[in-house]
Amino acid sequence: MVQVAVLGYGTVGSGVVKVIETNHDSIMEKTGVDLRVKYVLDLRDFPGDPIQERIVHDYDVIVNDPEIRVVVEVMGGTEPAFTFSKRALEAGKSVCTSNKELVARHGTQLQQLAHENHASYLFEASCGGGIPIIRPLRTSLTADVIDEITGILNGTTNYILTKMIDEGLEFDDVLRDAQQKGYAERNPEADIEGHDACRKIAILSSLAYGKRVDFTDIYTEGITKISSADIKYARAMEKTIKLLAYSSREGDEVMAMVAPYLVDKEDPLYSVSGVFNAIFVHGNMLGDAMFYGQGAGRDATASAVAADVIEAAQVLGTGVVSDWKPEKQLLKDVSNTRKPFFVRVPGDASQRQEMEAIFGPIEVVDAGVDGEYGFITESMTEAEYESRASQAEGILSMIRIREK
Amino acid sequence: MVQVAVLGYGTVGSGVVKVIETNHDSIMEKTGVDLRVKYVLDLRDFPGDPIQERIVHDYDVIVNDPEIRVVVEVMGGTEPAFTFSKRALEAGKSVCTSNKELVARHGTQLQQLAHENHASYLFEASCGGGIPIIRPLRTSLTADVIDEITGILNGTTNYILTKMIDEGLEFDDVLRDAQQKGYAERNPEADIEGHDACRKIAILSSLAYGKRVDFTDIYTEGITKISSADIKYARAMEKTIKLLAYSSREGDEVMAMVAPYLVDKEDPLYSVSGVFNAIFVHGNMLGDAMFYGQGAGRDATASAVAADVIEAAQVLGTGVVSDWKPEKQLLKDVSNTRKPFFVRVPGDASQRQEMEAIFGPIEVVDAGVDGEYGFITESMTEAEYESRASQAEGILSMIRIREK
Repeated sequence: MVQVAVLGYGTVGSGVVKVIETNHDSIMEKTGVDLRVKYVLDLRDFPGDPIQERIVHDYDVIVNDPEIRVVVEVMGGTEPAFTFSKRALEAGKSVCTSNKELVARHGTQLQQLAHENHASYLFEASCGGGIPIIRPLRTSLTADVIDEITGILNGTTNYILTKMIDEGLEFDDVLRDAQQKGYAERNPEADIEGHDACRKIAILSSLAYGKRVDFTDIYTEGITKISSADIKYARAMEKTIKLLAYSSREGDEVMAMVAPYLVDKEDPLYSVSGVFNAIFVHGNMLGDAMFYGQGAGRDATASAVAADVIEAAQVLGTGVVSDWKPEKQLLKDVSNTRKPFFVRVPGDASQRQEMEAIFGPIEVVDAGVDGEYGFITESMTEAEYESRASQAEGILSMIRIREK
Repeated sequence: MVQVAVLGYGTVGSGVVKVIETNHDSIMEKTGVDLRVKYVLDLRDFPGDPIQERIVHDYDVIVNDPEIRVVVEVMGGTEPAFTFSKRALEAGKSVCTSNKELVARHGTQLQQLAHENHASYLFEASCGGGIPIIRPLRTSLTADVIDEITGILNGTTNYILTKMIDEGLEFDDVLRDAQQKGYAERNPEADIEGHDACRKIAILSSLAYGKRVDFTDIYTEGITKISSADIKYARAMEKTIKLLAYSSREGDEVMAMVAPYLVDKEDPLYSVSGVFNAIFVHGNMLGDAMFYGQGAGRDATASAVAADVIEAAQVLGTGVVSDWKPEKQLLKDVSNTRKPFFVRVPGDASQRQEMEAIFGPIEVVDAGVDGEYGFITESMTEAEYESRASQAEGILSMIRIREK
């Protein structure tokens, strides 16, 4: 029997208890692992809930209990999650987490600590919720040199964009609605400004390219500027708008960014709608692959955490090696990366020569919006775009175009 | 250093050599495994090819060489692949294969043999080419009770259907074209009659549900009867036609079938086009997940085989446990499974009462095809459909409709 402690009885924590208990027999039959939740750490009590008798308020009870071999950290935030994780690993207990903030900030150190103590630090649920992506990167795509990862990694923004597109609504209205339905936080900044996606692409890129990608180095733009007019143009181009977390490698050079992109309908990411997430990976041998599923939600996330718990339990005493090098991966300046840009300007298409004089050959897009028109530039660097855009007057919006 | 022998220097075999050699340093850096191809078994010689000096014609050289720890079997067919695999496993060597026919027929026995000899029998490339699906089922979806697998598992038929849909062509013409381009075999029966997809869903279902699913028990229908008229109706319904390999579990009951289905545009399988494959999985906690990628092609398939070689090399002396129970999974009779049916009949929609008298409430579909019309039935069992259809005169075609 492998005894487990769960830190935090919130959404994910209660889900983990549910998965381990509901699927106990199936897990045992498939993997031979007999999992039991011995403690749940929470500040609160849950009178009437069968969990109550296993609730503890003092972390020392858990960390000092030699029967506990795996600790599930689903508290979120940096502290006390970081201290608790360190103490567990130092005591030779494995830690499984869904805490992307902690993994992005301190994952390198925690993996190192796990390694030194023959334990595992696992974080499948930190990226893409229930989608198996961390373990496939670590164990299935081992024969490949990965040269691109593009993810729709944030369910809240994808839900908002999908609603805006399907119903022609404005950002603020959809956000308010999403908050009422519980799909967006009351303080939605981490999602809508792209910070959440940024942390996740940092984790995935560290794993795929082998060195620590620091999320604070990643150029990040959210979706707050996307308007219903942008959506009209996207429709006219038979494209959609997605918040993409993108990174690529060419030789030793890695670049990463988070920004809204126009995505073509031939792209496998096009039809990833609502709260679903997807991660597109390109390998030098594998070619294109994509992993799709529920990026959030209690049960899906808990399922990923529980799969980590099972793996940690299977290698007790040795630990899973799943780390990247602690040295920092320098990121290529985003301003040197190329792509076409979609631009909206005041006036009408009869004035296209003005824009051509600045941007070079353009393709005009008519979406029937009064007093303005849109156009697509040829592929150019961000720096070139910036320099040209500074010569154009009154640009209403710019959205990057994903090239495949 | 881990020495590897490759059996068969055909498309996949040469790809495996290429992946191991091209990505040697990256593999070593990521996994610590130093792979070398020591022998390639082939009846032919390859004068001028650098592989020539490693070509052997006698399998005994390989099986008797204690330095060889992993054997890559990419010969295809049952014999001599089966005998060679058995001999390798009995000698304690791990075997990695892309041979779905062998895995579907004798996988249970070969896994058992691997287990007895502390070796691994791995077959990631047998289903979905380069798509990581076997290992995720085995190591990532362990916390879930899987209750559905639906795959587009055959690239040839998906290419043919995509071409028929995009260009409005007839089956025979597209098949001929695909054969000329090398996307279809000269003897295409295994693909177009669904046998290849059938073997793959048998393997995936065995893994997901835990008992041996015998592929000969699976009801299998190919795509040879699909016509350009069917495609017109599919378009009118905003659906597409896919050859789906489907299995599901409810309690202890498992059903499996391979047949063309109408797939709605909201379905993640809708946009899986051309030679791409995808595997949709539903778990009781995970919810919906999908794995997408190149289902065939030398490099993608070889990448999956090489990932297996790396895993086998990482657990030399113990072996990967990846088996299902040898007892046979009884399959529920397909005739008791329910779904709506799309039916084409001669005449026109003014005669719908005749069909309603037989099939109950129907939804008429007008695709502008002369002298006939189509309709969708309510959900009913296959047996009910058969019994009703036998009362209707001159049914032109029937295609099942996938329900989500």
